[in-house]
Amino acid sequence: MAIMMAARRVATGSTAASGRLTVAVRWLSTYREERDTFGPIQVPNDKLWGAQTQRSLQNFDIGGERERMPEPIIRAFGILKKCAAKVNIDYGLDPTIGKAVMQAAQEVADGKLNDHFPLVVWQTGSGTQSNMNANEVIANRAAEILGHKRGDKFVHPNDHVNRSQSSNDTFPTVMHIAAAMEINSRLIPNLKQLHSTLDAKSNEFKDIVKIGRTHTQDATPLTLGQEFSGYTTQVKYGIDRVMCTLPRMYQLAQGGTAVGTGLNTKKGFDVKIAAAVAEETSLPFVTAENKFEALAAHDAFVESSGALNTIAVSLMKVANDIRFLGSGPRCGLGELILPENEPGSSIMPGKVNPTQCEALTMVCAQVMGNHVAITVGGSNGHFELNVFKPMIANALLHSVRLLGDASVSFEKNCVRGIQANRERISKLLNESLMLVTSLNPKIGYDMAAAVAKKAHKEGSTLKEACLNLGALTSEEFDALVVPEKMIGPSD
Amino acid sequence: MAIMMAARRVATGSTAASGRLTVAVRWLSTYREERDTFGPIQVPNDKLWGAQTQRSLQNFDIGGERERMPEPIIRAFGILKKCAAKVNIDYGLDPTIGKAVMQAAQEVADGKLNDHFPLVVWQTGSGTQSNMNANEVIANRAAEILGHKRGDKFVHPNDHVNRSQSSNDTFPTVMHIAAAMEINSRLIPNLKQLHSTLDAKSNEFKDIVKIGRTHTQDATPLTLGQEFSGYTTQVKYGIDRVMCTLPRMYQLAQGGTAVGTGLNTKKGFDVKIAAAVAEETSLPFVTAENKFEALAAHDAFVESSGALNTIAVSLMKVANDIRFLGSGPRCGLGELILPENEPGSSIMPGKVNPTQCEALTMVCAQVMGNHVAITVGGSNGHFELNVFKPMIANALLHSVRLLGDASVSFEKNCVRGIQANRERISKLLNESLMLVTSLNPKIGYDMAAAVAKKAHKEGSTLKEACLNLGALTSEEFDALVVPEKMIGPSD
Amino acid sequence: MAIMMAARRVATGSTAASGRLTVAVRWLSTYREERDTFGPIQVPNDKLWGAQTQRSLQNFDIGGERERMPEPIIRAFGILKKCAAKVNIDYGLDPTIGKAVMQAAQEVADGKLNDHFPLVVWQTGSGTQSNMNANEVIANRAAEILGHKRGDKFVHPNDHVNRSQSSNDTFPTVMHIAAAMEINSRLIPNLKQLHSTLDAKSNEFKDIVKIGRTHTQDATPLTLGQEFSGYTTQVKYGIDRVMCTLPRMYQLAQGGTAVGTGLNTKKGFDVKIAAAVAEETSLPFVTAENKFEALAAHDAFVESSGALNTIAVSLMKVANDIRFLGSGPRCGLGELILPENEPGSSIMPGKVNPTQCEALTMVCAQVMGNHVAITVGGSNGHFELNVFKPMIANALLHSVRLLGDASVSFEKNCVRGIQANRERISKLLNESLMLVTSLNPKIGYDMAAAVAKKAHKEGSTLKEACLNLGALTSEEFDALVVPEKMIGPSD
Amino acid sequence: MAIMMAARRVATGSTAASGRLTVAVRWLSTYREERDTFGPIQVPNDKLWGAQTQRSLQNFDIGGERERMPEPIIRAFGILKKCAAKVNIDYGLDPTIGKAVMQAAQEVADGKLNDHFPLVVWQTGSGTQSNMNANEVIANRAAEILGHKRGDKFVHPNDHVNRSQSSNDTFPTVMHIAAAMEINSRLIPNLKQLHSTLDAKSNEFKDIVKIGRTHTQDATPLTLGQEFSGYTTQVKYGIDRVMCTLPRMYQLAQGGTAVGTGLNTKKGFDVKIAAAVAEETSLPFVTAENKFEALAAHDAFVESSGALNTIAVSLMKVANDIRFLGSGPRCGLGELILPENEPGSSIMPGKVNPTQCEALTMVCAQVMGNHVAITVGGSNGHFELNVFKPMIANALLHSVRLLGDASVSFEKNCVRGIQANRERISKLLNESLMLVTSLNPKIGYDMAAAVAKKAHKEGSTLKEACLNLGALTSEEFDALVVPEKMIGPSD
Repeated sequence: MAIMMAARRVATGSTAASGRLTVAVRWLSTYREERDTFGPIQVPNDKLWGAQTQRSLQNFDIGGERERMPEPIIRAFGILKKCAAKVNIDYGLDPTIGKAVMQAAQEVADGKLNDHFPLVVWQTGSGTQSNMNANEVIANRAAEILGHKRGDKFVHPNDHVNRSQSSNDTFPTVMHIAAAMEINSRLIPNLKQLHSTLDAKSNEFKDIVKIGRTHTQDATPLTLGQEFSGYTTQVKYGIDRVMCTLPRMYQLAQGGTAVGTGLNTKKGFDVKIAAAVAEETSLPFVTAENKFEALAAHDAFVESSGALNTIAVSLMKVANDIRFLGSGPRCGLGELILPENEPGSSIMPGKVNPTQCEALTMVCAQVMGNHVAITVGGSNGHFELNVFKPMIANALLHSVRLLGDASVSFEKNCVRGIQANRERISKLLNESLMLVTSLNPKIGYDMAAAVAKKAHKEGSTLKEACLNLGALTSEEFDALVVPEKMIGPSD
Repeated sequence: MAIMMAARRVATGSTAASGRLTVAVRWLSTYREERDTFGPIQVPNDKLWGAQTQRSLQNFDIGGERERMPEPIIRAFGILKKCAAKVNIDYGLDPTIGKAVMQAAQEVADGKLNDHFPLVVWQTGSGTQSNMNANEVIANRAAEILGHKRGDKFVHPNDHVNRSQSSNDTFPTVMHIAAAMEINSRLIPNLKQLHSTLDAKSNEFKDIVKIGRTHTQDATPLTLGQEFSGYTTQVKYGIDRVMCTLPRMYQLAQGGTAVGTGLNTKKGFDVKIAAAVAEETSLPFVTAENKFEALAAHDAFVESSGALNTIAVSLMKVANDIRFLGSGPRCGLGELILPENEPGSSIMPGKVNPTQCEALTMVCAQVMGNHVAITVGGSNGHFELNVFKPMIANALLHSVRLLGDASVSFEKNCVRGIQANRERISKLLNESLMLVTSLNPKIGYDMAAAVAKKAHKEGSTLKEACLNLGALTSEEFDALVVPEKMIGPSD
Repeated sequence: MAIMMAARRVATGSTAASGRLTVAVRWLSTYREERDTFGPIQVPNDKLWGAQTQRSLQNFDIGGERERMPEPIIRAFGILKKCAAKVNIDYGLDPTIGKAVMQAAQEVADGKLNDHFPLVVWQTGSGTQSNMNANEVIANRAAEILGHKRGDKFVHPNDHVNRSQSSNDTFPTVMHIAAAMEINSRLIPNLKQLHSTLDAKSNEFKDIVKIGRTHTQDATPLTLGQEFSGYTTQVKYGIDRVMCTLPRMYQLAQGGTAVGTGLNTKKGFDVKIAAAVAEETSLPFVTAENKFEALAAHDAFVESSGALNTIAVSLMKVANDIRFLGSGPRCGLGELILPENEPGSSIMPGKVNPTQCEALTMVCAQVMGNHVAITVGGSNGHFELNVFKPMIANALLHSVRLLGDASVSFEKNCVRGIQANRERISKLLNESLMLVTSLNPKIGYDMAAAVAKKAHKEGSTLKEACLNLGALTSEEFDALVVPEKMIGPSD
Repeated sequence: MAIMMAARRVATGSTAASGRLTVAVRWLSTYREERDTFGPIQVPNDKLWGAQTQRSLQNFDIGGERERMPEPIIRAFGILKKCAAKVNIDYGLDPTIGKAVMQAAQEVADGKLNDHFPLVVWQTGSGTQSNMNANEVIANRAAEILGHKRGDKFVHPNDHVNRSQSSNDTFPTVMHIAAAMEINSRLIPNLKQLHSTLDAKSNEFKDIVKIGRTHTQDATPLTLGQEFSGYTTQVKYGIDRVMCTLPRMYQLAQGGTAVGTGLNTKKGFDVKIAAAVAEETSLPFVTAENKFEALAAHDAFVESSGALNTIAVSLMKVANDIRFLGSGPRCGLGELILPENEPGSSIMPGKVNPTQCEALTMVCAQVMGNHVAITVGGSNGHFELNVFKPMIANALLHSVRLLGDASVSFEKNCVRGIQANRERISKLLNESLMLVTSLNPKIGYDMAAAVAKKAHKEGSTLKEACLNLGALTSEEFDALVVPEKMIGPSD
């Protein structure tokens, strides 16, 4: 990165950086000149990018390295440019050049040229500069493949790599490719893994009857398995929710070119390229039904982000429950024993901090925030183009990555190892006053209430209070108060 | 309302209100005593509610009248309690009582007893108090139907009206009923009406070629019909989006009772009541697959709200475009003529303020805000119960109502009457420099650029510059620069 | 309201409403004709409003009655129009008319004419229609005061009531007046009341040593008073926070007229009217330093809403803690005993649902949502006017009202009556393993850890484990383990 | 990073990585063993971190490199640990060790050891692991300074570096240090730079009279300088707003230790360390008035984020206006000429995309989103600790960085170079119909309206219509219609 920074400085002529410059120059040996319609500009010789990338680098010094265009977008550019070259060969692009472009694009798709994509998210809102970055890198790399020098434009970024395309349709296309791939390859499998482990736990705990809690107060019993089945269902529906939004994510803008009309492209290009991307990614991409909507709005991202937001809400609930149920070891609820992954306290055994719950809930909060960012960006498109594209893409991919990674971290380092503290669960259940409702049919509502009141007042068990009031014998009590019979509807 | 306020004061014994009290008492003639397990309490005699409603009225003096539980929730309680009575008759409820309950509940469903539902949204988070309000009103009304006095508990709020139910399953059930009904009866038809008019406009404008705008800057042309087709598609997908979320909204919690187990209800009650509600509403309600999730989480609301949020984003874009395209009359873009519904300026003709766009975009902002409120509420459930229910329900119903009403107001008072300012559109298009791209093949890139540069510098038309530079004859220019050929891909 | 609805229908000529119309007409006896630059329109005779109000009523059928412009805005119009008339008399307005306007405006300020303000929030984004509503009502009422008929324009809504003003400066002015008044009269005193009771509780509980909890896990002890002192501080800072934003809220746009220049008003009018409003309200209003900002942006509302959002965050924390500390009666933390305001369960004593916490946290969620709505609206101003004014004002006033009311409900019905469950607190503290840290200096880290481990494993107390391992005598243990010495730094 | 990944794999024993492992092992030459209370663990020998850092690295594989704890936090740890050592020497820490700790901590503060802080934001919510990372790195580095080996614990991470501290008070302390420093060193100066340039532009444009626009429609005139003065004021108030929140940001939690009581620290430690940090940073840090609040809540961050949110709202307005006023070159408003920093179109001169506005508005959207994330995190603290600390810190620092960088990029690459298109401004102004209001006093309202109507209908100028109707002579018209007289109140 130091080099990139030096590059930024060289081009802008900062004298302050001259010391580092000397070092940089020595190391790089030299800069080469690249040109665009604005004229010539110096570009680091060891980089494949060209003039437009270099200009963006100098004009958008916002946020630093952490804010680079996310890798899934770069890789999607590789996929798209490869497919475009393939279709363009059908439409008359010189196959020699076309194949070199395909090969170079494949390297981008494989993440091999990531270092040549230095631009940050906070650039032009159309993502044009990242599209040009892809065009320039692929053109230079393809030229090299064909034995030419980088910068000599033997393979042209616009005429060859960007042929039949415009930034205005390529960027939304890579947004959709990247989002759909990340959702399919990272989020959904990870949520399924979490779902499956929650489901197994629900099964494992299916016979453990415990106190229920509503309004955070003691309520009628249920099984721990039933409680976990709620979580399982939330995660399952979360998967359904995000899947429901994919049909609109699979629609590609490519073929709309500058304003959605498809000017400067060929009839059928849109359908063919969507088919090529579908084949390349094994995902059911199709050409967007309406290209004007596909450029001017990113409602599909707002919608998918809404699904992620719902998943964040679900996981927040699950993680909160688990940390409260595992609270203790002595002064909390203590019904669950969470796996201990790191020292919670240097001296006190049993102080297991629910750190995985914490990481997950922090992720959920960020996802809710990103959703608002996407909403604001999505609502601010004007006329033929929404120019919040890189921000929208970045925020969604951030949310997908965080939710995907955190789900599996939570599964692996927490849920999988959760044990029921059967003794504690049983103790709480049996001390509970809620079981008094079972006595109703036998001793009547008034006497049952009196028993509960006495037990509450005296801090005794229901049984003690019941025997004490002479309401029932010990045997009768035991026969009537069977929490196991309170966990479902009656026949 | 003055009476309710007086009622609030009587019960709390505010001496400050004693003057008004005298008036109130004279007018009401008297209060009656109602009881619950807390003891007796005075209730206004002309109201059907009972003790628990009265207590809530006194304990939650938050927000005033405007914050009452929304009417669709009250009506949904009517539907649910009617269906419950019907199913309970099958399970052994005295049919005389059951039928009176059904009749009273129907009156609630018809909105005839709205004045007897004074409670605000900001009460217990389970909605228990509104459930008891419904039980009390229906019980008292059913008693009257059967010739008994209100307050005598001939029909019992709990034993009869709430039979086999708990607040914890009824409230989520009415939330789902109310939301599904409002979405189906108010939102979707209104969006369809808007969609249909936008589509008609898209058709009407299909031959009007105009300048495109990307980055708010002049771009290649498209037709006004194409531009409107983007809006049409956004609204169409908006309908799809909210429809996609309904399968989870159609799942009813009823039958889960207090914690989701179904304790105190009968096997099959859940399925039967969902079927009864489905029949009553003609909507495909089913019993929730997992009752624990249905009580403890409101992910279905977060999800549907996410769809509404996306619709808000879409409509914000559409309304913004329309107001900018209609800006002027002289110093704006001026491509659209918006209907004039009220004086925009007392003296200046043509100052038509895009007030419908303004109302709609304000609605969109509120919907985005409500979505965050629902998200926060949805994420804060604990253990067996989410206790943000009334807030979540209220915010979603608010969003549905606002979006539904504003869509149709916008359609009726704005979109329907939009006219294209053909003269202005044509003038802008022909003055535009973007058309220079058509000259490329004939005069070459360099000369085309020179023509554009000259026109830009001198403020002349492209044609003038072209003739001036001797690049083309007038006839040649006219033959080449045909915007109508720039609105689609080439063969 | 039925009448207003009928009015809406009459004017729009809905035949469907003809039945109700007959009834309505009979009851109202007649409509009168009012006029604006658009021509004549029928207005219900018993209403003071005029033509422009009537048109808005017909054109913005969005949301129904609940969505009427909030009362504090209406009252602020009364204040402003009274002050404007007063200043206008200085600038040459006929004092007879001016005084009648002042008297009529006072009635609006007193809330006596609320029924004559039927317009909803979802109207033109400048609030022009509500300004005209105020002008029309005050003009007609002033005319009546002077013995003229409503509708005869003896007092003119524009020339007299709106003199030297424009909607574009009056609406932001009433927004600021209403917000500042509500914050000062409702929010701050109520927060102070809550603060004072929390502070008293902090004092009351200052000697009760209890277990601390971090990560929801048992931690070192503190006093319950210390714990409450955190809540007290949060509320105190909340008051500071909202106060910090008021300097910008006290700036009034009045005098900027249509675009901020002050065209059509007189030099000095801005300063004088701000002084008049300051005198009338006893709040330190001043004229805005820059009127262009004051019309085109509502950053002051976004900022104040940010303070409300922070207060919501604080109160969410406090209410959550209180409900968890009060959870039980048997299976929760049970350290606090919350007042019981209504039946929590019909049979189980001690089931006290923390309903006030629930109402308050629901309010907090809505305030967070309203904040986003205000943020979105605030960010969408264009050129010389932000046209999300009514939505922004409504959302902020909603948040202020809800927070103010809920704070005092929470204080009165919950905090004030909270009792410490000293027995439970003591039991938990003494069972805790955290106290082992006190043994370190005496028996060394390794032995202390062994003691804790043994106690944890066997479920015994620390003391039992300690004696069992022969680490200390009973007396030594008691002398060393003194939680009271663990609640502060050492000397 | 590859090494870190390998490190992750080695420790977890993934066999799949064995190939890469071989390479890694060769390159690293060896791992060393570090220990904590959990036992031994392998740590890469070239890294200074210890066992607890290593465990976190393995347990929280969330988000990848981009999600590392932000650098300002790392540097703040350096500052804090240096100050703590300094104060601890006063309290008896061996000065040899203390000074070595100070030296090592200074290296952290200088950013020299950034590579030794590999942990991500998504870890334990208390930030404990990053505190231990700092303790471990500083201890190992200090040991080396003193001629010892890393890992031999000659300088102990807990006993020496973390002395008198707990993660629970250090992490909030570094949050406050980092935020206050970034706000003071990055955000405020950059906003001031933007403010100053806007102010200069306001001055430069003070004589250019132009059409005003309200509701996006033509309105009465103002000067371009007045228009820019609104933006200037927004930015100025933005600076005030964030400054207003700093008093609470300057409060440091240090001294509260684990739960806020200050157990295990010394009386006065809190005041002394705040003084030391204040001296070190030249910022007015003080010890927090209430340590319980300082650990359990992060309201100060929610509040400051609210100020950032308001700034984002302001900048969104400013950037939107500038891009719309600069829209064109032919078919937009065209009043401003924005600097051209990169090719907007390869052929069309004058197509200058407002890319800096786009980057800035994207940043604003993200800041609004981060604000919601911080709000959600801030509201979810429980008992003695808020465990959303790293997320809250990260989101705020992200917002500060983005706003700071984007403000200066916008200033430098856009605002500074904005030129007024005087010709276009003048043309629009003179074509406008709004000027008709000037004729009122002379020719009367009715004739003025007739003139405007005629001009609107015929598309003529007001003057043409006026002459045509014989209302005025040309000289009279010119004398009356003087926009320069319409830009302020009258005497």
